[in-house]
This record gives sequence, structure tokens and C-alpha cells, in this order.
Amino acid sequence: MPVYKAPVDDVMFLLTDVFQIERYNNLPGFADVTPDVIEAVLSEGAKLCEEVFQPVNLSGDKQGCTRHPDGSVTTPKGYREAYEAYKAGGWLGLPAPEEFGGQGLPSTLNAIMQEFLSSANLALGMYPGLTQGAVAAMLEHASEEQKRTYLPKMISGEWTGTMNLTEPHCGTDLGLLKTRAVPNGDGSYAISGTKIFISAGEHDLAGNIVHLVLARIEGAPMGTKGITLFVVPKFLVNADGSLGARNGVSCGSIEHKMGIHGNSTCVMNYDGATGWIIGHENKGLNAMFVMMNEARLAVGIQGLGCSEVAYQNALAYAKDRRQGRALTGAAEPDKPADTLLVHPDVRRNLMSIRAFNEAARALVLWTALKADVAHRSDDAAARQAADDHMGLMTPVIKGVLTDVGFDNAVKAQQMFGGHGYIEEWGMSQFVRDARIAMIYEGANGVQAMDLVGRKLGRDGGRAIMTFFGEVGQFCQENAGHEGMAPFTGPLSAGLQQLQAATMWFMQNAMAKPDHAGAGAHDYMHLFGLVALGYMHARMARVALDKLKAGANGQTERMNGKLVTARFFMERAMPEIAAHVARIQTGSDMTMAFTAEQF
Amino acid sequence: MPVYKAPVDDVMFLLTDVFQIERYNNLPGFADVTPDVIEAVLSEGAKLCEEVFQPVNLSGDKQGCTRHPDGSVTTPKGYREAYEAYKAGGWLGLPAPEEFGGQGLPSTLNAIMQEFLSSANLALGMYPGLTQGAVAAMLEHASEEQKRTYLPKMISGEWTGTMNLTEPHCGTDLGLLKTRAVPNGDGSYAISGTKIFISAGEHDLAGNIVHLVLARIEGAPMGTKGITLFVVPKFLVNADGSLGARNGVSCGSIEHKMGIHGNSTCVMNYDGATGWIIGHENKGLNAMFVMMNEARLAVGIQGLGCSEVAYQNALAYAKDRRQGRALTGAAEPDKPADTLLVHPDVRRNLMSIRAFNEAARALVLWTALKADVAHRSDDAAARQAADDHMGLMTPVIKGVLTDVGFDNAVKAQQMFGGHGYIEEWGMSQFVRDARIAMIYEGANGVQAMDLVGRKLGRDGGRAIMTFFGEVGQFCQENAGHEGMAPFTGPLSAGLQQLQAATMWFMQNAMAKPDHAGAGAHDYMHLFGLVALGYMHARMARVALDKLKAGANGQTERMNGKLVTARFFMERAMPEIAAHVARIQTGSDMTMAFTAEQF
Repeated sequence: MPVYKAPVDDVMFLLTDVFQIERYNNLPGFADVTPDVIEAVLSEGAKLCEEVFQPVNLSGDKQGCTRHPDGSVTTPKGYREAYEAYKAGGWLGLPAPEEFGGQGLPSTLNAIMQEFLSSANLALGMYPGLTQGAVAAMLEHASEEQKRTYLPKMISGEWTGTMNLTEPHCGTDLGLLKTRAVPNGDGSYAISGTKIFISAGEHDLAGNIVHLVLARIEGAPMGTKGITLFVVPKFLVNADGSLGARNGVSCGSIEHKMGIHGNSTCVMNYDGATGWIIGHENKGLNAMFVMMNEARLAVGIQGLGCSEVAYQNALAYAKDRRQGRALTGAAEPDKPADTLLVHPDVRRNLMSIRAFNEAARALVLWTALKADVAHRSDDAAARQAADDHMGLMTPVIKGVLTDVGFDNAVKAQQMFGGHGYIEEWGMSQFVRDARIAMIYEGANGVQAMDLVGRKLGRDGGRAIMTFFGEVGQFCQENAGHEGMAPFTGPLSAGLQQLQAATMWFMQNAMAKPDHAGAGAHDYMHLFGLVALGYMHARMARVALDKLKAGANGQTERMNGKLVTARFFMERAMPEIAAHVARIQTGSDMTMAFTAEQF
Repeated sequence: MPVYKAPVDDVMFLLTDVFQIERYNNLPGFADVTPDVIEAVLSEGAKLCEEVFQPVNLSGDKQGCTRHPDGSVTTPKGYREAYEAYKAGGWLGLPAPEEFGGQGLPSTLNAIMQEFLSSANLALGMYPGLTQGAVAAMLEHASEEQKRTYLPKMISGEWTGTMNLTEPHCGTDLGLLKTRAVPNGDGSYAISGTKIFISAGEHDLAGNIVHLVLARIEGAPMGTKGITLFVVPKFLVNADGSLGARNGVSCGSIEHKMGIHGNSTCVMNYDGATGWIIGHENKGLNAMFVMMNEARLAVGIQGLGCSEVAYQNALAYAKDRRQGRALTGAAEPDKPADTLLVHPDVRRNLMSIRAFNEAARALVLWTALKADVAHRSDDAAARQAADDHMGLMTPVIKGVLTDVGFDNAVKAQQMFGGHGYIEEWGMSQFVRDARIAMIYEGANGVQAMDLVGRKLGRDGGRAIMTFFGEVGQFCQENAGHEGMAPFTGPLSAGLQQLQAATMWFMQNAMAKPDHAGAGAHDYMHLFGLVALGYMHARMARVALDKLKAGANGQTERMNGKLVTARFFMERAMPEIAAHVARIQTGSDMTMAFTAEQF
């Protein structure tokens, strides 16, 4: 049976010591959350994840979802009870406005909870996760009446939400979508078409399911400029808020997938279903992008969550399994063999994953705090800067954390040998579940193009220049600080290489956009390494300061932070040069083949 | 439905143009196999794989194997018929000696067939594959009587073979094994114990299953020096060769695995089963290593096979699926969207996989030819040199081709977006199947240690010095040749870095073996890049020569070879510097944590 313990200590170190959350006290929702309160909230969340969500993870993978002939879908055994516990704890509304029944707490705390949920049970965590995304889109774009009708029940978890974008012939290229909306004459529309890959499209956890659906109103322009967002509830809602007639939307089938078996991935058939516009006609993509950005951050966090739980299980196995002897001679000569932990190659895998996880968690929290600033600050300049940061980091977090999160799950599985390949140890599930995060909410190739093609140049490069400035200044200020050279050295070299790669795009990709396309994937990972390296350097500085101040019984942990950060500098940062070299070869060889030559 | 076409053309280019197989005419079995004969044989093999094995691959994954209450196991629908066709074609005995009913053809042809089989149906191909491994071990270590009893029926495919090493508490560390053998007094032994992860341990394809089993004879020393190899047939064999009583070995259960569902992975219970020593008492590991080396090469080839079939399917999808527009403007403005093939990031993935596959295939054939020399040449010096090459390349081919083969299957799956994640397109199966090759026959971390800890220093570094010499000489001879600079430049730089890394181990790992352990994985991949780069450079030289000579209608293909080789030099070889940098950081940070600090 796999194990999981939520990393509350590490989170508290980041929130209080590294990012000093008390500096955000001026933001609504932050004033009351002292470190003590935060730790209490997170410990409760940890308990839910460890004791309720995680125990039904492996069994849920094995059982999967079942669609019945009437189109209803049953989730795996134990999912209902776990979801009820989550609902009862008010977790879904943690970051939501109090006027709709939410708790109005920092969305940063929600991001942490998303990591814990993803580690404990990714498939189950997706049901409330998608609801939170739908809530975010409706908060920003729905009418007051729509908000009053749907939000309180979605925020309480009584109803869940979905996002319906993909159709059989289009996923990335939404301009091709065919689902159509015909005015009913009463302000509502009749929606018809087929949507595929709809996560949580039908299930037995909630009384109603609120579908947000992209469709094209009759006569609207082709392409992305003719797409409108609609709300289409499974059951129509009466004026008094009670459930009315069943709407014309149903689950045609569920997919047999590589992983996340506990989440029902549905083909949804819309057959004249009644829907109402969210926001404005033909502006559906804008509205949906709010939801997608929330979702992209959440998916990046899923990558981290999978990596973390895979690491914890590999570590437990490495401490327990005895095989072979240390290269330096038997570590425990009285035992028939040493534990796997003595083997350098096992250590290399463990340390690689650990060093990534700790930096990725920091990057997520740094960015989540910016999200809170962007949404809650009354200082326009602060909001803009935070928004810049989020726009820049969203594709990096989504692309890098899911790519590396998957690789790490594979590394962790590898440590189990043959036991990693059979399903009973759960390592295969972590790999199979982690795989989806590289694909959904915009495949990682799309994230890379979003970063290079859209985010770099936006507003004259304001966001990227700010990032360069901050990292550069940190290196300058810390280079001479005792003990910081092993961190500022590689970081500042990495920053220079990132700047060189950025410059290369500016000089070469304008005239030949394929140069940007051929280098985008490498650039995203290069950017990720510098951002993660910066996180390690910041954590190292805090660890050094704490050690100097006495560390209060945290000496071993802070020394561990320094070792982990140095491991990252020595073992992960060398990849930067390879990325730059590839970027600078351009696209000539990549694009040289004719279609026939393949 | 996935597609597959065996790459016969590419194989013929390698055999005839690059490695000039006619130079091997002095070897037994080679004289009659003219290029025409080879092409005829391979085309037959290709047909079998494309038309018989491949069509039951996806369905076999879905259905899997079934163990019945009596311990018997049924393979998926269509497997029996496919296996019968393989048997009828005499494929199992292709490289086996004629005196036991084999065809005595080059084992190089068998290696090619192994690639085709692995692409078409990995799980099914394992049944005869393991039999070939058992045949190899028995040819070298069994008595004449044992050979006469078992080999003809194994070589015809009437019986299959297995290898029984792993036990619940030991896989890599076979010194711990507990299965015991008690003399029956008549020359036979009673074998008792539990073996796990036994591929093809029980099934319905053959009349008998010949288990090769490692066990410890009562009173034998502990550790690896007390292990003996036994042959334990499922049915005892009468003096006239007919099947006798059922032996005391049975399948206790089959594993639920991530992939290769069509292969029955069994827990085998030995309950006083009758077995006979193969080779010598307490020398079981030596005998088993013959089988394992054969198997390791075959597993490396599986990595290539998975990569190739995943590539072919991704390419077909990229040519067919329309999504978005070329960055340089619509390629087909009259269509609603361009094909995926216009997108540089899609091209990057396709070219990366292709460049690996073509070089990996070359490396396999180069090494397979050496295997034929090692086994068949009457020149002792040639045999020794070939044997050196094989010892050195076996861990590289096993480790690198399976690691990268898996990564490539993941890359290919990624191109399908959400369609890659659902099972019906087959891409998930390629990933799940490819995953096992990194684990079995010695997990890749073990391969890396075999290379660094054993193969580098063997015989005073004779094998590695020969390899360095050959690659260095090639660079020297070709650097000035027109058109070769883009290949010899990166290759010779890569060789220097490989030599520097080797030197670093010599200077640092003697005193501190953990330095070798912490760098072994990187060294294996570094070595692989130089070896694959060398293959590309050799192919490029041949392509240039053919183009100069007129190319006989192969101009496009030969130009394609040059593009692919340059892509590899530009995009894969930069990784070399990252590997060297990591190796040279040593093991200090890798090993710094105490067990408690984790």
C-alpha cells in the first residue's frame, strides 16, 4: 500500500521564512491568517489527504469509473465518502469570496491544498479542482444573477463544474469548433454538438453538474472570433434554486485511459441543451482563458504532487529494501545485504527528485502569492507586476513541472525494479496518472509556444525584464555573502545563458518564426531551470541565515536544504548549456524534410 | 488501429552499404546469404510481423492473459495462431546450429527480426525470445544428452524456454537467493522455492516449457558462489523424447502489470520439482550470464522496436491530423487547418526520434555482426576483439536504447494530445510496454555500473581503448573529406569529452568508488551519444559517397540521411557536455544526506 505524508513543514518554511507571508497582511483575507492559523489549516488539509483521499487512490485506479446504460456514471468505491468529507471541510470554497459562501482565504493556501490532493488522489482531486476553475471563470464573467444561481452551490461543493472545449476534430485549435448555439428567443440558447475528453463530465458525487461550454452562435464568424461561452447545467435550475427538468446533455461514453481511472472522462452529447451566455457573445475564449489559466497552474501543481508522492514511496522502499552492498564496503555487515540507500545511483535519483520538488514547491508558492496580489491588492502597480509574473510563469509552471514531474515518477518507479512495473505497489499508477498533466490544459508544446511566442514579447518584454532584473539583483547582492558562492555562481551563469537565448530569439525569430518554434521547448525548460535555481538560491540564503542565528533545532533540516540546493546547482543546472546550444542551432535541420521524405 | 511497416530498406542500407556484410563471407552461415537472400528473408519476416503479429497487439493488451484455477494460463486471442505461423516459418531456429534443426543463419538477421517483432508485438515476441536465450545458454553449457533432449524441440518452437532468477526478496542481488536443490540420488535434484516475475512461465502456446532455474544445492556456500543452474521441464521427458509426468512446478499467480499484458508474468512455485544441473555445480551464474547477455542485447533492441513503431504512428498522425497553421503562414490555405507536420515542435519530436532510431539500428547491427564474429570466426584475435566489443556495448545498448526508446514512445504519444492518453489509439500501449525494457534483464542502473565498474577496466581497458582508437581514426580520416566536417567536428569533440570523463573516473573513482557510482548513469548515456554519433557519421560518409556516385534514385533518401545525421549532431550531441559536468561533480552532494535527513 503506497504511503503519503503531506509536506507541511516544508510549506511552512517557504511561507514564513522564505516568502514571509506576514508581508502580505495588507491584502484582504491575509490579515487573520497568522502562521499558527495557516499551520492549523494545512494540518487539517493534510489529514484529509492522508487519511481519506490517499487510501482510495490505488483501489480507485483498479476499479475505475463505470458508465451505465442510462448514461449515468458511478465513481470508484470510497470516492463519494471522500468527496463528502472534502465538502464538509469547506475546502472547495477556501479561496472563494465570502459573499457566495466561500472562506475568502488566500488562494495560496488553496494551491498548497492542490499539491496535497494531487499527491493523495489525483483523479478524485480533479472533481473539485475543475469546479474551482469554473467558479473562477464565473466570478469574472458571469452576470450577477448567474453568480447567485450557481456559485453558492458550486462553492459549497453541492454542485460541480466542468469545462467543455475539445471536440473530436479539434483540441488545440479551438477556432475549428463546430458545437452550435441557436437562440431560443427567451435569452437562452439551444446547444448542440459533441464534446470529448470532458473530465468529470458525469458522475455520482454531486446533485448537479454545471457545464461551461464553448459553442458558436448561428451566423457567428468562423475561427476563434465567433466562439461564445455558455453555462449549461445538467439539471435546469428553478427560480427558487431547486432543481428542475433534466437538460439535453448526456454522457455518451467514457474513455479507457492510461491513467486517472477514477476520473470519468466523458464524451458529452449536447442535443438542443438549454444554455445561457457567460460574458459576451463571441468573447468566449477570453472568458474561458480565465478558467484555463487557473487550470494550468493547478495542472503544474499536479506535476509536483505526482513527483512528491512518487518520491516518498521510492524513499520508503530504498530505506527498507536490502539488495547488494555499498561500493565502499558493507554498511551493515550483520545484515544479509545493505539497503538500497547505500547505492549512489539510487541516491542520485532520490536527490534529483527531491531537489526538483523543493524548488518547484517554492516556485508554485511564489507565484500563488503573486496571484493573490494580482486579485486582491488595491495598488494598481503591484497588481500589474503580479499579473506580469503570473502570465510569464503560468506556461513555465505548467510545462516544466508536468514534464519533470512525470520523469520523476518514472525515476521513482525505476528504483523498485520489477516491483515498480506491477500494479500492486502503486508506482505504475503514479507514472500513468502523471502522464496526463503533460497533455491536458494545453499540451506542453503549446505551453512552450505560449511562453516564447506570446509571453516574452508582451508589453515590450516587461515581465521577462523584471524577472531578469530580480534574479540578477539577487545574485549581485548575495555573491559576496558567506556561503552563497556555490549558488550565486551557477545561477548567475544560468541567467546569462537565458538572456543570451532570449536575445537569440529576438535577433533571429522575427525574420524566421520557425526558429522560435524549434527552440521553444528547450527555452521553456531553460527558463524553468533558472527559475528553480533562483528558488534554491533564495532557500539557501534563508537556511544560511537560520543556521547562523542558531536554527532552533532545525540544524539538520537547514543543512539538508543547503545540500539539496548544491545538488541542484551541480546536477540540474548543467542542462542549461545544452538547451542554449540546441536553441541556437535554429530550425533548419528540424524543418528540412519534405513531407514525402519522412 | 496502429500501423507498422518494418524498415527493411533502412536495414538493407546498413547491411550492404554501411557495414558491407559481404566482407563477412568467410564466416559459417554467411556465404550463402547474398544481399538478395537477406532481403528475401527479411521481407518474409516483415510480412509476418506486419500482417500476423501486429494485428493482435492492441487487442492482446486489452485482453491480457488469464490464469485458470488449475494454474493453466491462456494467452490473448490470436496469439496461438501467430505463434504457430512464427514456428512454421522456422524463425525461432534462424540463428541456431543446423545439427539441432536450426538454419545456421547469421544471428545478425535474428537481431533484425527481434526489432521487427518488438515493434509489432512485444509481449508476443517475448515467448520465442526467451526460448532463444535459453537455447543459447544450453548450447554453451548443457551436456550433449541435454542438448539432444531439449534443443531440437526448443529450436522448432514446439517447446518454449524461460529463465528463473528473481525471488521475492532478491532480484539484482542474486547472492541472496533461497531456492534449494536436494540430490535425489539418481543425478537429479528436487528443486523447491518460489520464483517471481517469470516471463512466459506458463502459457498455452507450447507443449512443454523448459525452465532454467537458479538454485542453491544443500550445503553449498552462501552468496553467488553457491548458485547452480538447473533445467526443470514442466513435463518430464521420456527416454524416447515423448512427454512424461507433470513435474512439480506450477504457476501460482500472474502479475497485473503496467504493460506487456499479453505476456504471462508468473509466480512459479517449485515444490520438489525434478531438475538436472546445467554445466557445473555452483557455477550457475556463469551459465546464466550467457543467457543474460543474449537477453540484454535483445532487450536493448526492444527499446529500439518500441521507439520505431511509436515514431511511425506519430508520423502518420502528424501527416493526417489538421490543427492550427504554420508559423510562416497557412501551408494549405484551402484546408480548414494545416497538418501537424508544419509545426516546428512536432518536427523536433519526430526528427529526434528518427535520428535516434536510425543510429540505434546501426549500433545494433554493428554489434550483432561482432557477435557473429565472436561466435563463428576461426581467427582467435578477431574473436577476442569482437568479444571485447560486445562486452563493452551490451550495457550501453541495453541501458541507452531502452531509456531513450521509452522517452521516444512518450514523445510520440505527446503528439497525439488527449488521443495519446486514451487506449484506443495504441500510443499508451507503446509507452507502457516500452517501460519494462528499462527494468528487466538488469535495471538500467545496474547496466551503468556494469559498464563503469566492470567493462571499462577489464583487460587493462583494452575494449574501450579500441573503441576510442577506432572513432578517433575515423574522425582523423574523414575530417578533411568534403561535406564531413559537420559530423566529424561534433563527434571528435564528443570523443574527447568521453575520454576526459573516463580519465576522471580513473583518477578519482579508485580512491572513492562512490564517484563512479554517482556518475555511472551519465557516463552510460555519454558513451551512448558518442557511439550513436559515430554511427551517424559513418552513415553520412556512405550517403555522401552514394550521392557523389549518382545515388541510383536514392538521392532523396541519402539527402535525408545527411539531414538526420546533422540534426543528431546539433540536437543530441550538446547533451554530452551536461553529462561530463555532472560526472565531474563527483558523489559528495549525492551521498551527503544521512538516512535520517531524507
